[in-house]
Amino acid sequence: MIKHVGILCIGDELLDGRVSDKNGRHVMRLGEDRLFQVRELRIVRDDEDRIVQALDALSSCDVIVVSGGLGPTADDRTREAAAAWSQDVLHEDAPSLQRLEERARERDYTLTDNNRRQCTFPSRATILATEVGTAPGFRVDHRGCAAFFFPGVPREFQWFVERYLLHELGPDDDAPRASARRRYYGLGESKLETMVEGIEPLAHQLGGRVGYRASYPVIEVSLKAPEDAALAQLVDFIEARIGAWLVAEGGEDFFARVGRRLIEHKATVAVAESCTGGLLGGALTKTPGSSAWFEGGFLTYANQAKIDLVGVNASTLASEGAVSAAVACQMALGSARAAGATFGLAISGVAGPTGGSAEKPVGTVDFGLHTPQGTFHKRAHYPGRTRDEIRTASVYTAMALLLWHLEGRLDAHDVRGPFDASSVEAGVPPAP
Amino acid sequence: MIKHVGILCIGDELLDGRVSDKNGRHVMRLGEDRLFQVRELRIVRDDEDRIVQALDALSSCDVIVVSGGLGPTADDRTREAAAAWSQDVLHEDAPSLQRLEERARERDYTLTDNNRRQCTFPSRATILATEVGTAPGFRVDHRGCAAFFFPGVPREFQWFVERYLLHELGPDDDAPRASARRRYYGLGESKLETMVEGIEPLAHQLGGRVGYRASYPVIEVSLKAPEDAALAQLVDFIEARIGAWLVAEGGEDFFARVGRRLIEHKATVAVAESCTGGLLGGALTKTPGSSAWFEGGFLTYANQAKIDLVGVNASTLASEGAVSAAVACQMALGSARAAGATFGLAISGVAGPTGGSAEKPVGTVDFGLHTPQGTFHKRAHYPGRTRDEIRTASVYTAMALLLWHLEGRLDAHDVRGPFDASSVEAGVPPAP
Repeated sequence: MIKHVGILCIGDELLDGRVSDKNGRHVMRLGEDRLFQVRELRIVRDDEDRIVQALDALSSCDVIVVSGGLGPTADDRTREAAAAWSQDVLHEDAPSLQRLEERARERDYTLTDNNRRQCTFPSRATILATEVGTAPGFRVDHRGCAAFFFPGVPREFQWFVERYLLHELGPDDDAPRASARRRYYGLGESKLETMVEGIEPLAHQLGGRVGYRASYPVIEVSLKAPEDAALAQLVDFIEARIGAWLVAEGGEDFFARVGRRLIEHKATVAVAESCTGGLLGGALTKTPGSSAWFEGGFLTYANQAKIDLVGVNASTLASEGAVSAAVACQMALGSARAAGATFGLAISGVAGPTGGSAEKPVGTVDFGLHTPQGTFHKRAHYPGRTRDEIRTASVYTAMALLLWHLEGRLDAHDVRGPFDASSVEAGVPPAP
Repeated sequence: MIKHVGILCIGDELLDGRVSDKNGRHVMRLGEDRLFQVRELRIVRDDEDRIVQALDALSSCDVIVVSGGLGPTADDRTREAAAAWSQDVLHEDAPSLQRLEERARERDYTLTDNNRRQCTFPSRATILATEVGTAPGFRVDHRGCAAFFFPGVPREFQWFVERYLLHELGPDDDAPRASARRRYYGLGESKLETMVEGIEPLAHQLGGRVGYRASYPVIEVSLKAPEDAALAQLVDFIEARIGAWLVAEGGEDFFARVGRRLIEHKATVAVAESCTGGLLGGALTKTPGSSAWFEGGFLTYANQAKIDLVGVNASTLASEGAVSAAVACQMALGSARAAGATFGLAISGVAGPTGGSAEKPVGTVDFGLHTPQGTFHKRAHYPGRTRDEIRTASVYTAMALLLWHLEGRLDAHDVRGPFDASSVEAGVPPAP
C-alpha cells in the first residue's frame, strides 16, 4: 500500500513573504525515489486552533510531517496544538531537561523558563532526541495516523527527516517500480497530448501511469509501470509517435546531451548570433568541459558585424534582409570557417517588441546549421511571445537542430537543405 | 478592516517535488506593501473533491486566490471544483470561445475539444479575460467570499494578480506613503547591513521602514517614510554609505540602465567572453533597442580564438595564462577595435567545477574594460560558488564596471588602470 503523506508547515514568517518554505519541498522531493504520495501541503500561522484544525484534516493520511513552531518562545504553539489534537496533556520530560541542562553548562549559559518549554511534550508522545540543535522532535500516533513534529530550521528539519522519518516512508511493493522520463521540444502541450492519444488507456491497462509537465519551452513526459517489460511498452508507444522531438532522457540535461554527442562525433561547433546576442553560446558552455566542443563564436548584432566577422555578403544582406534564410546560412557557414569548427550554428530573428514587418513579424527567426554535409535552414515563428521568450525559444530551437542532426533525426523536421557552400555563398536558399 | 486571504495552489506537480510553488509566495510578498493577512496556504492535487474541500475550508477568508488546474487537458479539475463549491453548473462562454478561435486562426492551429474546455466556467462566475495566454481566469462570489481562479503558469498568474486582484487587497491608509527602491551589487548582505548601520533607528524615528531583499546576486533595499522629506533623509543616509555600489533605482532594470547610459554617452560596446560564453552579450541585448549600443562580440572560449578573433598576444597567453589581467585587457581592447565600438568589455575566468589551481582557484575571474581613457582591470573571486553562479556573477560584475564607469563611480571600486593601448599590447598590467 502506497503511503499518503500530509505536510504541515507552521509559522507566521512563512505566510507574510519573509521566508519561503523549504521543508515541505524537501519532503516532496524524497518522493522521487520512494513510493509515497504527498496528498496535501498546508502552511498555517502560529495559532493553536488553526494547527489543530489542520492536524484533524490531515489525519486521514498515513503520515503527517509537521515543521516548525517548536521554538522556546511563547508564540510557538505547536506542542500545545499536538496535545489538543491527540486529546492529551503536556508534561515535562526529565531526560530531555537533563540533556538541555548539560548543554547549558557546557556552553556556559543559564536555562530560562522559555528553554524549559522545549522539554514539554504530549504525555503519550515518543520523544525524538536531537543531535543538531536544542529542540527535540516528537512523534504522536493518533487515529491511525503517525504525526512527526520536527523543528522548522531547515538544517535541523532535514536531519530529523533522515533519522526518524525516511524508514516510515519506505518503498512500496505494490506500486509501479519501473520509471522513465523523456523530454521533448518543439511540440505544444495540447499537440503533444493529441499525438500520444491512447497512451493513458495503455498505461492504465498495464498498471502504470503517465504524467506531463511543461517547463517552458520543454515538455517532460514521465512514465511509470509495475515492471520493465510494461515500461518498455509505454516507452515504445511514445517514442513511435513523438520520438523525433526528443531532447533528453532521464535526468540528463538537454544542453549536456548536445555536448556529449559532439564529443562522440569528435566534432566542435561555432556560433553566429544576432537576436540572441550570446545566449546560444551561453547554452553551449553551460556544461562543464564545454571547451571540448565549443570553439568560439561571433555576436553579429549589427549588419556590419555580420559582414566583417562572419563574411555575410553585403549584397545578400541588402536583397534578403538580415532576417533571412540566405543570411542565416551564410552566418552558419562563416562562423564555422572563421572559428575552424566542424559545425556552425546561426540565429537571426526579430525578437521585438518592435522591428517586425508584415512579411517578417516579431517572432520570425531564421536558423542556419552548417555541417560537413552542407548547410541547413529552418524558419521558425514564435507569435505572441515576449522578447525574452523568443530569445529563449530560439536558443532551444538551434540546440535541437544540432542535436537532431547529430542523432540522425533532422529529416523528420521542417528543415531545408543541405545546400553546398558555393550555393550558400551565392545567396541560396531563397526566402521560404 | 484588514482582509484575510487564503491561497490555494492546485497541481500534482506541486506536490511531488517537480515544481516549487511560486504563485503563493508572489501573493504573500504583495503583503509587504499592503495591509492584508495571508491566513493559510494549501497545495492540493488535481482532485475535484479535495479542491472543493479546500475551497470550503478557506471560505471563511475574505478572499481566496486559486492558482492552477485551468489547463486544456482532462486532468485539470479546477473549473469543475469551482462549480461544485458554489453549487453551480459549468457552461461554455461564447465570447471566450470566439477569442480563442481568433487566436487559433492568427497562430495557424486547429482548436481541439481540449482547447474548448478552457472556455467553460461556472454559470454565475465573472469571466476575467486574459491578454497573456489562452486560459481566461474567473471570479466566483460565494458565502461572502470572493474567490479568484487564475492560471498556474507564473507569468500568467502574476499578470492576473496585477490586473484583477490587487485592488481587492487595497492599500493601507495608515502606512508610510513615500517609498523608494534601490538595488546594489557587489556587497554581501551582512556587509551591506553593517555599512548602513544606524538606518533602522533613523527610519523608526522618522516613522518609516527599511527592508532588504537579496535576489542573487543583487540586493534590493526598500525605504518607506510618511512623506517625501523623511524619505529623502533615508535615501541620503543610505546613498552616502553604499551609493558607489548602486546599479538600479525604482523598478528599473540594471541592464536597461547600462543601455540608457550608453545612449546618453552616444557610445557603443563590444564584448569578448571566455568563461561566460555569450551570457554577457545576452545581458547587453536583453533590453529592446539594444542595437543602439551593442555592436557585437567575440566568444573566445579557446585560446586560439583569443589570438585569432581579438588579437591577444600568443606570448602574453603563454606567459600569463588565459585567466590573467593582461589577457583580459587585451581581449577588451581587441574586441573594441575589431568591432569598432567605444567600449570593450572582457571576461576570462575559471568557472569550474575543475580547472582551478592554487594560484587561480575556481571562481577567479579577470575583467577588462576598454574605454576612450584607457583600459581598466579588475580581478574578482567568487569562492564556493557553482559554475552557474560564477558565470552569472561574472556578467553582473562586468555590467557593473561599465555602469560605474559611465556614471563616474569606477574609482570607488577596487580596479586598476587606466592603462594605455601600447602598455596593454605589451602585456600590462601584470598579475594583481
